[in-house]
Amino acid sequence: MEKNIAVIWGDCSSPEIVKQTLRVLDKVAEKYGHTFHYTAAAMGGEAIDKYGDPLPQHELDKCLAADSVLLGAVGGPKWEGLPGEQRPEKGLLRLRAGMGLYANNRPAKIWPQLAPASPLKPEIVAQGIDFIIVRELIGGVYFGQHQTHTLENGEKQAVDTMPYAEHEIERIGRIGFETARKRRKKLCCVDKANVLDTSRLWRIVMHRLQAEYSDVEYSEMFVDNCAMQIVKNPAQFDVIVTENMFGDILSDEASMITGSIGMIPSSSLGDGTRGLYEPIHGSAPDIAGKDIVNPTACILSAAMMLRYSFGMAEEADAIENAVSRVLDKGLRTADNMSDGCTCLGCTAMGDAILAEL
Amino acid sequence: MEKNIAVIWGDCSSPEIVKQTLRVLDKVAEKYGHTFHYTAAAMGGEAIDKYGDPLPQHELDKCLAADSVLLGAVGGPKWEGLPGEQRPEKGLLRLRAGMGLYANNRPAKIWPQLAPASPLKPEIVAQGIDFIIVRELIGGVYFGQHQTHTLENGEKQAVDTMPYAEHEIERIGRIGFETARKRRKKLCCVDKANVLDTSRLWRIVMHRLQAEYSDVEYSEMFVDNCAMQIVKNPAQFDVIVTENMFGDILSDEASMITGSIGMIPSSSLGDGTRGLYEPIHGSAPDIAGKDIVNPTACILSAAMMLRYSFGMAEEADAIENAVSRVLDKGLRTADNMSDGCTCLGCTAMGDAILAEL
Ligand SMILES: CC(C)[C@H](C(=O)O)[C@@H](O)C(=O)O
Ligand SMILES: CC(C)[C@H](C(=O)O)[C@@H](O)C(=O)O
Repeated sequence: MEKNIAVIWGDCSSPEIVKQTLRVLDKVAEKYGHTFHYTAAAMGGEAIDKYGDPLPQHELDKCLAADSVLLGAVGGPKWEGLPGEQRPEKGLLRLRAGMGLYANNRPAKIWPQLAPASPLKPEIVAQGIDFIIVRELIGGVYFGQHQTHTLENGEKQAVDTMPYAEHEIERIGRIGFETARKRRKKLCCVDKANVLDTSRLWRIVMHRLQAEYSDVEYSEMFVDNCAMQIVKNPAQFDVIVTENMFGDILSDEASMITGSIGMIPSSSLGDGTRGLYEPIHGSAPDIAGKDIVNPTACILSAAMMLRYSFGMAEEADAIENAVSRVLDKGLRTADNMSDGCTCLGCTAMGDAILAEL
Repeated sequence: MEKNIAVIWGDCSSPEIVKQTLRVLDKVAEKYGHTFHYTAAAMGGEAIDKYGDPLPQHELDKCLAADSVLLGAVGGPKWEGLPGEQRPEKGLLRLRAGMGLYANNRPAKIWPQLAPASPLKPEIVAQGIDFIIVRELIGGVYFGQHQTHTLENGEKQAVDTMPYAEHEIERIGRIGFETARKRRKKLCCVDKANVLDTSRLWRIVMHRLQAEYSDVEYSEMFVDNCAMQIVKNPAQFDVIVTENMFGDILSDEASMITGSIGMIPSSSLGDGTRGLYEPIHGSAPDIAGKDIVNPTACILSAAMMLRYSFGMAEEADAIENAVSRVLDKGLRTADNMSDGCTCLGCTAMGDAILAEL
C-alpha cells in the first residue's frame, strides 16, 4: 500500500522521538512492501515561530490532504507567555476540530515488564490495569464560548460555556459501545449528572444507545468517584466514555498509574479513517537535545496509526511485539530505569526496536 | 461557652455516625464546661420525605440561626430517580450557597497507623501525605446557568456555564494563601488556563494576591497534571487552591490515596465563623442500620467545628488525640481492618473514642 502521512515534528524534544518513529515506519514499509510518503506540517511552537500562528490554514490543509497524521508533542517555555489564541495548545485544539476528530482513545495498560514502576501497590497492579478512556475531543467546555467582561460594579467576570448536543454525544457514545464490544464488553459512562445538564443529556442519549448494545454491560459513575476508583481498583474498568474535560483529567490520572507515561500512545479519530496519532506525554523541554527522551510512545502511536487508519494489523502487531521484546531484554530509557536494566538514549532505543523488527 | 449547633442527621447510615459524634461533643462539653444545644434540621432525603423539598427555607433558617452546622451525609437509592431539583444533593448545594460557604477545606493526610491501607506504594507514602485542598464551593459550573433547549434541527442541546467574578476568586485565593501561611507556606493554584477564560482570570487575581503574600511560595499547575502528581508525588503539595469542579474531582482523588476515606472530615466556611462540617464520605446505604459504619470522619468534623467555628483548639486537639490513641490500640471499624487489629462496630468505636477523652 501507498500512504501519505502528514508529520508534525513538534517542539523541544519532540523531533527526536519523531525521527526514531519514522525509522521504524520505514523499516515496516520495507519489510511489508508499503510506501509511506511523509509531508512535514508545522503546528504549535514551530508554526508560531514560522508563521506567527500555531496552525495556519495551509498547514491544516496538509493534514487534511494526508491519509493520516503523526504528531510528537507541542509547546514549551518559549511560547508560554503568549496570549491564548497564539499559544501552541491552540494549534492542537484547532487541528482536532479542523480534522473533526471527536473520538480520543487513550489506553491505560500496564506493560508487565514495567509493572514495578507503577505508583500503586503491587497487590492492586496484580489485579490488572487494562482499560481505555474514550474521550470526547471536540465539544464541551473546550469549544464552547469563552468570554471575559466587566460587570456593572466594575469587576471582571469570566464565563466558559460547556455545550453538548445530542449528535455529539451519540457519535462518541457509539464509539464507546463499539470499543467495549471488541474487548471485555463493559462500558462505564462517567459524568456529573447530579450537577450538570450536559451530563443529564449524556445519560439520556447513552440509555438510547444501550438498547442497541445489549451485549455490553453498561454502567454510570460520577467523575469524582471515578477519580477515586482509578486509584483504588483500576481492574474494574474496561472502557470508560466521557466528555472532553473529564476525559482530559481522568486519562492523565489513568496514564500515571501505569507508571510509564513515556510508553502511552493515543489515537484521535472522526468519521473516516484519517486520524491523529500522538504520545500522551508532553514535549519534555528540560531534556531536549540530549538524546535521552523515550521515543516509545510515539513509535506505539505510529503502530496505532497502522492499525486504525491503514488497516495494517499485522504491521502494528510487529511494532508492539518488538517493543515488548526490547523490554524483555531489560533495555530502558532513563524515565523507566530500574535496577538490573540497561539505560539507552533515544536513538539507541530506536535502534533496539528496529533490531527486533 | 454556650453554642447552638444545627444538626443535619442525614440519610441511610448517617444518623448512626451523627449519634456517636453528639456523644463525643457532649463529653467534651462536660469536660471543658461548655453547653452545646442541638437543633435538628432536615436536609436531603429526610427533607424530601417530610416536605417534598431537599431544603425548605425553614430548615435553612435553622442552620442560619445556629452558631455552626454539623452534617452527616445525605442521599441514597430511594431518592435517585427524582428530577434534579428534588434530589438530596440539591439540598446540599442550596445549603452551601444559602450559608455563603465559599471555602471548602479538604485535608488529605495520612494517619501513620493506617498508612498500609493507602493504595500507593510504601515508598511514596513514606515521603509523606499531608496537604489540604481549598476548594471554591459556591461558584463555577455548579452555580452557573444550566439549560437544555431544542436546536433548529430538532435535536436537544444542553449548556452548562462556568462563571467566576474577581471577588469570588479573590476571597478564596486569600483563604488559600492564609492556609498556606499557617502551614509549610506553599500554595499551588490548579486550573486549566490553557483552555478556560475563568482559569486565566483566576491567575490574574492570584498574581495580585501573591504580592501580598510574598512569604508563601506560589506555583501554578494544570488540573490534568495535578491529577497525575497526586498519585505520583503527593509529598510535593502543601496547599492546593482550585475552583469548584476541579476541587471536587481532585479532593476525592486525594482522599483515596490516604487509604481511609472513612477518616476524612471537611469544613466549609464563609466570611464569618459559622461553618458546615461534614465527613467527605457518603451516606453508605449498603451498610445502613448495621451499626458497622465508621463514625470517625464525622467525629473529626466536629473537632474541626470546635477549632474553626468556636475557637476551641484544646478541645479539638483532645478529640483528634483520642482518635489517634484508639488507632494506636489497633481498634478499627470494618472499612479499615487489617491483620492484628480489633474490629469494632459504630457504637463501639464511639465508646472507644469516648473512653480516651
Ligand atoms: C494541551 C491541552 C490543551 C490538551 C488538552 O487539554 O486536551 C492536553 O492536555 C491533552 O490532553 O491533549
Ligand atoms: C453531592 C455532590 C453534589 C457534591 C459535590 O459535587 O460538591 C459532593 O460530591 C461533594 O464533593 O461534596
